[in-house]
Amino acid sequence: MAKKTPYILVSNDDGFFSNGIKALARLAAEFGRVVVIAPDREQSAVGHAVTIHEPLRANRVKVVDDIEGFAVTGTPADCVKLAHDQLLEEKPDLVLSGINHGSNAGINLLYSGTVSAATEGTVLGYPSIAVSCTDFDNSADLSGCLDAARLMISQVLESGLPKGITLNINAPAGPFKGLKWSKMADSRYVEEYEGRQDPFKRPYFWLTGKFELLDDSPDADIQLLRQGFATVTPIQYDLTHYLMLEEMKSKTES
Amino acid sequence: MAKKTPYILVSNDDGFFSNGIKALARLAAEFGRVVVIAPDREQSAVGHAVTIHEPLRANRVKVVDDIEGFAVTGTPADCVKLAHDQLLEEKPDLVLSGINHGSNAGINLLYSGTVSAATEGTVLGYPSIAVSCTDFDNSADLSGCLDAARLMISQVLESGLPKGITLNINAPAGPFKGLKWSKMADSRYVEEYEGRQDPFKRPYFWLTGKFELLDDSPDADIQLLRQGFATVTPIQYDLTHYLMLEEMKSKTES
Repeated sequence: MAKKTPYILVSNDDGFFSNGIKALARLAAEFGRVVVIAPDREQSAVGHAVTIHEPLRANRVKVVDDIEGFAVTGTPADCVKLAHDQLLEEKPDLVLSGINHGSNAGINLLYSGTVSAATEGTVLGYPSIAVSCTDFDNSADLSGCLDAARLMISQVLESGLPKGITLNINAPAGPFKGLKWSKMADSRYVEEYEGRQDPFKRPYFWLTGKFELLDDSPDADIQLLRQGFATVTPIQYDLTHYLMLEEMKSKTES
Repeated sequence: MAKKTPYILVSNDDGFFSNGIKALARLAAEFGRVVVIAPDREQSAVGHAVTIHEPLRANRVKVVDDIEGFAVTGTPADCVKLAHDQLLEEKPDLVLSGINHGSNAGINLLYSGTVSAATEGTVLGYPSIAVSCTDFDNSADLSGCLDAARLMISQVLESGLPKGITLNINAPAGPFKGLKWSKMADSRYVEEYEGRQDPFKRPYFWLTGKFELLDDSPDADIQLLRQGFATVTPIQYDLTHYLMLEEMKSKTES
């Protein structure tokens, strides 16, 4: 019996004008029917924000080739929620987010709109994958990202993903050495703000931030990316630290 | 030898005009010196967003009693980053966020600005606690939340918290039955948007959302809150799903 053609939702946080979303939509079209539902403007670093105090609008747009979609006046998480509840023709077989122009490895995960779109897909029960290129340049060579994504998309369409788990792919620009399973590297930003004075002598602060890697595990995503590999990290939205929970329960409930 | 007086940073996502932040600042003042650094307007549901495309300003404000602080033109995560890098007189012994007017149990955690302020404190290396009242009313009785927070603050100032772990406290309005250690309940929102038409017959969508509990574990935060308990959930910012990581590594690297 022929398999149903997969129906694939593509979103991102850079908006419709990025090369990354066009490349990912074209890749998705190799696998099935594609609809792109993404923010109508850049929404980087919005994390898992959702819009609650104003309504959303969704306008039909042509994306690339004959792929169409909706530009939504909200965040990446809004896009996936609104897609699921109102805009999709049927339940999607896969949610893809990206390709982000800029790394979503290590602590960047927390702030990432790209990853939040995929996480929202997982919360709603769909297999979901985020894809990012470590190069910020909008014209970076995305061929490696596409190869890594192609591999994981085909595995996930074949076998699905365990409940509650999202895949987070990062790859360098251009070719890479191989795709490695990885953990989110412990890391943080230091010396974050540059203070300035406005013409009226009042201070204001620009976020700049020097990235600091605190993790020397051989399977940390950032380590592997620096060595020229692409990485795929299984992430979860259940934030409970079960080890501490069990310890505290056994101390307090004995 | 007398212990140093603790220095405590208080933030939130509801801004300076909420009763919750005033109550939490007063509670903190029972334990040490307090500075309040919080958004200058409501920033609910912003998740872990940070401001990267415009500068931040921080204006000195008087909060309550003789407690002072800064109103920041950014998100809760911005506030804690800017506090750490520019505004605090010294490293804080504790970061508190809240008291939020509205539950941050279950899936609400993902979207919560209140929790993201505490998580950012943890990322920066400080013991951090988020506190929320399940009642949305700004005039709700916060006495129970304050009792639960008082207990955990005194434990954390005494013994610290393991690296990478944040405490997330939720309590009902008024008195509660007891404080229980809990997990983040698996849950989601369904039937999320109400579609309307503007006077020009164009559609727009309001987020409404019916909450759905998918978790019957006896230690799920939402279950316990419904039974009248207050809850404290240890949460982590490392999102790696280690079980799947180990499985995939053993499959692909043998």
